[in-house]
Amino acid sequence: MQRTLIIDALNAEKARNDITLCGWVRTRRDAKGFSFVEINDGSCLANMQCIVDEGTEAHAALGEANTGAALAVSGELVASPGKGQKWEVRAKGVTVFGLADPESFPLQKKRHTDEFLRGIAHLRARTNKYGAAFRIRSEAGRAVHDFFHGRRFAWVHTPVLTGSDCEGAGEMFRVTTLAPGEKNTDGDFFNRPCNLTVSGQLEAEALALGLGRVYTFGPTFRAENSNTPRHAAEFWMIEPEMAFADLTDLMELGESLTRHVIEHVLSHCEADVKLFDNFVDKGLLERLHGMLRQPFARVPYAEAIHILEDSDKEFAFPVTFGVDLQTEHERYLAEEHFQRPVIVYDYPKEIKAFYMRLNDDNETVAAMDMLVPRIGELIGGSQREERLDRLEARIRELGQKPEDYWWYLDLRRFGSVPHAGFGLGFERLLMLLTGITNIRDVIPFPRTPGNLEF
Amino acid sequence: MQRTLIIDALNAEKARNDITLCGWVRTRRDAKGFSFVEINDGSCLANMQCIVDEGTEAHAALGEANTGAALAVSGELVASPGKGQKWEVRAKGVTVFGLADPESFPLQKKRHTDEFLRGIAHLRARTNKYGAAFRIRSEAGRAVHDFFHGRRFAWVHTPVLTGSDCEGAGEMFRVTTLAPGEKNTDGDFFNRPCNLTVSGQLEAEALALGLGRVYTFGPTFRAENSNTPRHAAEFWMIEPEMAFADLTDLMELGESLTRHVIEHVLSHCEADVKLFDNFVDKGLLERLHGMLRQPFARVPYAEAIHILEDSDKEFAFPVTFGVDLQTEHERYLAEEHFQRPVIVYDYPKEIKAFYMRLNDDNETVAAMDMLVPRIGELIGGSQREERLDRLEARIRELGQKPEDYWWYLDLRRFGSVPHAGFGLGFERLLMLLTGITNIRDVIPFPRTPGNLEF
Repeated sequence: MQRTLIIDALNAEKARNDITLCGWVRTRRDAKGFSFVEINDGSCLANMQCIVDEGTEAHAALGEANTGAALAVSGELVASPGKGQKWEVRAKGVTVFGLADPESFPLQKKRHTDEFLRGIAHLRARTNKYGAAFRIRSEAGRAVHDFFHGRRFAWVHTPVLTGSDCEGAGEMFRVTTLAPGEKNTDGDFFNRPCNLTVSGQLEAEALALGLGRVYTFGPTFRAENSNTPRHAAEFWMIEPEMAFADLTDLMELGESLTRHVIEHVLSHCEADVKLFDNFVDKGLLERLHGMLRQPFARVPYAEAIHILEDSDKEFAFPVTFGVDLQTEHERYLAEEHFQRPVIVYDYPKEIKAFYMRLNDDNETVAAMDMLVPRIGELIGGSQREERLDRLEARIRELGQKPEDYWWYLDLRRFGSVPHAGFGLGFERLLMLLTGITNIRDVIPFPRTPGNLEF
Repeated sequence: MQRTLIIDALNAEKARNDITLCGWVRTRRDAKGFSFVEINDGSCLANMQCIVDEGTEAHAALGEANTGAALAVSGELVASPGKGQKWEVRAKGVTVFGLADPESFPLQKKRHTDEFLRGIAHLRARTNKYGAAFRIRSEAGRAVHDFFHGRRFAWVHTPVLTGSDCEGAGEMFRVTTLAPGEKNTDGDFFNRPCNLTVSGQLEAEALALGLGRVYTFGPTFRAENSNTPRHAAEFWMIEPEMAFADLTDLMELGESLTRHVIEHVLSHCEADVKLFDNFVDKGLLERLHGMLRQPFARVPYAEAIHILEDSDKEFAFPVTFGVDLQTEHERYLAEEHFQRPVIVYDYPKEIKAFYMRLNDDNETVAAMDMLVPRIGELIGGSQREERLDRLEARIRELGQKPEDYWWYLDLRRFGSVPHAGFGLGFERLLMLLTGITNIRDVIPFPRTPGNLEF
């Protein structure tokens, strides 16, 4: 089927006397002598206005087709006298592929609540807002790949099915082929307990210590039974890992990646971002441009604690050296104190994971979190402990057995190198880019406790 | 840490008097007056030869560092008098990050079996063969994204956790948060049975019918207990879906994608592919170039059956109209009869899935499989049944309830359009690109029955 995408037709340099567009009717208005039909094909936010003269075969073919119907319209692409669009189509032929009964089609012109639209997730990509969100999702993903490819990182696929809970990053889903109620793991697919990964980091480290620079970009899982606008059971993570790199290199990487994705989306999804600025989060565009205007702030954890202690703000969670920062603290630092993204580093070892590199003070580790306005933590990472003796000691301190980490320790046994990496929650980045405040609305088919439809 | 990647140093335009490279020692040779040390940093297949003069501080720092040790070498990049390399480094400084005890380091210079290396998957990215395989994997993934982005397809993420087994494509893994032995699904995370996806197609269709053109590129799962070189429990699939498209468009898409990825890998991974041509699959390069030389063949299923019936070949599985093609038949068609990739289309409806569009003959469906030499089926897809009545009838014919497909049928109820899509197994594509014959060797950490290490 030969057709031109609406985005290409709207960007045409000159009129064309023979063009075919396909799409779904967004609005139809019948005037004296002709019908205006606006169609959208998902290639961009904008619709193409088509004019179908009464008394023509095209008009007869159009019939009762209304909002939601799928059409092909062929005709002439001509300059539009209306404002807001450069081109319109004077229809010569119309084909209706599928109608949408106005009585039952749920997406009529009126605005719907986000919650209602979550119940019809299979149709919501046909709305302006979700079409825009998913185009931004695609372009942001593209920008991530571009960024790492440009720096010669290899995209690696770490396993989703895992036998280890090394990171202890949260509750895990169990995976099995046994019937419900069956207990004997000997007959299970892997002959041992299997979980869904919470992080590809440990495997990414192994690959970085051969390929040099790698990143993962794949789904990750948490079985936390928390119904908040920020948590989903299934989400996508980006986890770069660099050999021969330290914490300073990692901060540079995180800041550059964030800037690159913002820049890419601002320049490639202008209309889509503007929609969110207009209707979802006034000030979004200014906030994003503002983030690009100056370098991100960097502050040691100890100093961040002083800043929080000295502030007049009343926090629900009190602050002292040694506490884990809560979202309220993170947002205060980024939104009010620094008024820009801030990288906090050198956290107390007690509140961070076992694999983070111990600093010379013996109290803090070479960890960093990047905090951004509206979101809080966007990135969490660290230089990894590359010294075998210290890593083994830390594992024992935490009451675990080094044998359980045999292959991870091998990486320190043979040709160990300073290396560093972080995790970036892709959905949090999308919430930053769109101003959407509920994670369920940046994922096409979100998974949360009790929600597995579609 | 400032360093130059070996690939960039090897491609340098002129000598440099101050350069720092990092990497792992592949070989060391001590001669009278100096040591030759070849290091590799994973950025490319080639090593950089470094010359460390005896009696210098650098030589003292080098110490006993041998195969597997991690080093930084700084010095001058100078034209190499040796053959096979343009540049070498005359070392002024050496830093040893980590040694590798020759007694215990498993990757000594001798060649290892694939099976041995699977047992040390955490180290195998440091070998020539697996470094090359994973660089090709990354570039092939990159080429897939490039291809679809260039055609304005949106990258979409369909859920891994699913409540449906709509496609019936194979055995599924069960996902739960209940303790082993616990039966009551009411207390389970989703309050209903949950599986790992075998295909994102149905959700991709919903998104294509809003965004127009989409593709998935993510992990997919099969719990088939089969220990063959072609099956893994976890693998990556690419599933494009196009609205306003028919079977002919789909064939064009599949052929163009395959060509694009081959071309990209041949031009971006020349040395890596050559390694496979030399040591793994003699004739690989010629086969890949051959595939680009002429259009792929296209043949209706009925004609393919005639070809197989008329051949002199003895097949283990006999051929008549109505049988599903086996790998032996697929390979005969691609390797011997057509001697190039071949797209077989219009299969009998009985051997294909319920959602494939019924042809006017009422016997065949608008399905296509792309068969390639050495692999057999690389792509399987179809135009989708967009007619509500026919789709419902087909679901009932198969003894299932249309209600269970309510949202999938909604896509035909509201603004239905002709649309088409396929699935491409990424690992099969990698086996085609590398000549590797065991799927376990194109996946960094493969998952097969009983294998969940790392």
